[in-house]
Amino acid sequence: MSVYTTVTEAQAADWLRHYSVGTLVELKGIADGIENTNYFLTTTHGRYVLTLFERLTREELAFYLNLMAHLARHGIPCPAPIADHRNQFMSELGGKPAALVTRLPGAAVMQPGVAHCREVGAMLADMHVAGQSCPVRLDNPRGPKWWRETAPKVMPFLDEPRQALLKEELRFQALYRFQDLPRGPVHADLFRDNVLFDGVQPGDQRIGGVIDFYFAGVDSFLYDVAVTVNDWCVHPDGRIDEERAAALIAAYHATRPLTALERGAWGVMLRAAALRFWLSRLYDFYLPRPGELVHAHDPEHFRRILELRVATGERLPI
Amino acid sequence: MSVYTTVTEAQAADWLRHYSVGTLVELKGIADGIENTNYFLTTTHGRYVLTLFERLTREELAFYLNLMAHLARHGIPCPAPIADHRNQFMSELGGKPAALVTRLPGAAVMQPGVAHCREVGAMLADMHVAGQSCPVRLDNPRGPKWWRETAPKVMPFLDEPRQALLKEELRFQALYRFQDLPRGPVHADLFRDNVLFDGVQPGDQRIGGVIDFYFAGVDSFLYDVAVTVNDWCVHPDGRIDEERAAALIAAYHATRPLTALERGAWGVMLRAAALRFWLSRLYDFYLPRPGELVHAHDPEHFRRILELRVATGERLPI
Repeated sequence: MSVYTTVTEAQAADWLRHYSVGTLVELKGIADGIENTNYFLTTTHGRYVLTLFERLTREELAFYLNLMAHLARHGIPCPAPIADHRNQFMSELGGKPAALVTRLPGAAVMQPGVAHCREVGAMLADMHVAGQSCPVRLDNPRGPKWWRETAPKVMPFLDEPRQALLKEELRFQALYRFQDLPRGPVHADLFRDNVLFDGVQPGDQRIGGVIDFYFAGVDSFLYDVAVTVNDWCVHPDGRIDEERAAALIAAYHATRPLTALERGAWGVMLRAAALRFWLSRLYDFYLPRPGELVHAHDPEHFRRILELRVATGERLPI
Repeated sequence: MSVYTTVTEAQAADWLRHYSVGTLVELKGIADGIENTNYFLTTTHGRYVLTLFERLTREELAFYLNLMAHLARHGIPCPAPIADHRNQFMSELGGKPAALVTRLPGAAVMQPGVAHCREVGAMLADMHVAGQSCPVRLDNPRGPKWWRETAPKVMPFLDEPRQALLKEELRFQALYRFQDLPRGPVHADLFRDNVLFDGVQPGDQRIGGVIDFYFAGVDSFLYDVAVTVNDWCVHPDGRIDEERAAALIAAYHATRPLTALERGAWGVMLRAAALRFWLSRLYDFYLPRPGELVHAHDPEHFRRILELRVATGERLPI
């Protein structure tokens, strides 16, 4: 259960007086999410998500909320932050920074088919294009600088082969500079549980929501594609499913054509994307925050993915 | 049929390349609306309304689009304008100013009950409170100045008793100055066909959308309440239904309490609201635009309402 901070109905009802969304109907804690406290909050106007931010800086929060508002303004079905009577997105509740965002329809599809991957590829490209005019910027908080800071902290917990893999990958990635690749705000965490598909018929489903932007930042767009492919287009053992990967990347390419430089960087980027999640899962597994009970993912899944990407040297499947 | 400008599917598909809303699925002309050309436009992302503006100035349009964006940002379920890749709401299509806005769920309720009126009153108050921080302003384009310009144009078409009623009401309204009443952006046209109720069960319906902001402007909030009551809370003959009026006004008052000054101005404001629609319906009836085929409402309905409000001197029912 990821409710770190408890909010009572009386607190929420009182806090809602600062907004124009009607009065409280229901408040319900959400068990998902490993970073923040989330509640489903229903009012006489509609359905929202209330988030209390447990450890983000105000600068990070300002970026996330403004990025979501920018993407929503461009028609991307992401949570739209609601402004209060001071016309601000960022508020405070229970002593924590807090925000109210729209709740989106649909449910995660954990065993996606080719059609789902095609939808996700097209949506990702639309997000990248729409994000380019976003006036606020923040470097990807889980980029190379964070890798270099985090690796020494988890190294003591690893056996010798894993230490060697991690050291070698950091050395390999340091050989590459990706500043010349097309860049902009990226989601950086577009896993299957962060896309909601809406619609009754599996063949007629479309994306009702793209959620959880709290790892977003400015990075190369190709990195975002690699993060997405590493989760949406893999067999249970981590190998890439070429059919789903081709569908996702072709749909992406139809909206934002990939450049020659991006094609050349694909294999390296899949490794970078695997490295980032192996590292963060190692960190959350071996160095959990006090009071953080569950939801630490198995780090081994991304260790296997990294090893596979190193071994096969993937080429772009389109 | 109010499609003054024809847009082909090819034109729409091409125009959508400037947006991040996916690709065209369907385009369908809308018969409603007397001012602009509207199409339902469905893309791979979602459902939108495409509007081509037939006679609004760029200043008016900028106000309407920014007001809708502001209210949507505050959680009011109004059409949210979609920004294009230049990050602009206002575009051009077929040589006309054009905009893409979200399409909202629900349907108009033409025979509203007490519960519907309560919902509308609460929503109207929320709109007024949220609108106060809106940075753009435009005077109500159908205010007293417009009355004085329009009355002489329709006067020749009226018989003697109607001329006398119109002249007397203009004289009466000129005695009052409402600048001291609480003011801000108002919808100014919140008739039953501009509120969409969503939900299967009549007892469980809530407002899915408030639409058609193209008569909005800055005016006294009480004027907006009077316009709304004159449509939502009347018997077919124009008399006020006290029960529905009390429900609407009490729900409004619970969110934005009415002042003593507003209580005193209620009767005059109901007359002002009736005058405005009698005048515009007279104008549209006797002086239609070339090519404007139908949808001219019967002016007599608001003549009767005005006469009734003059005769009974309505007091605030709460």
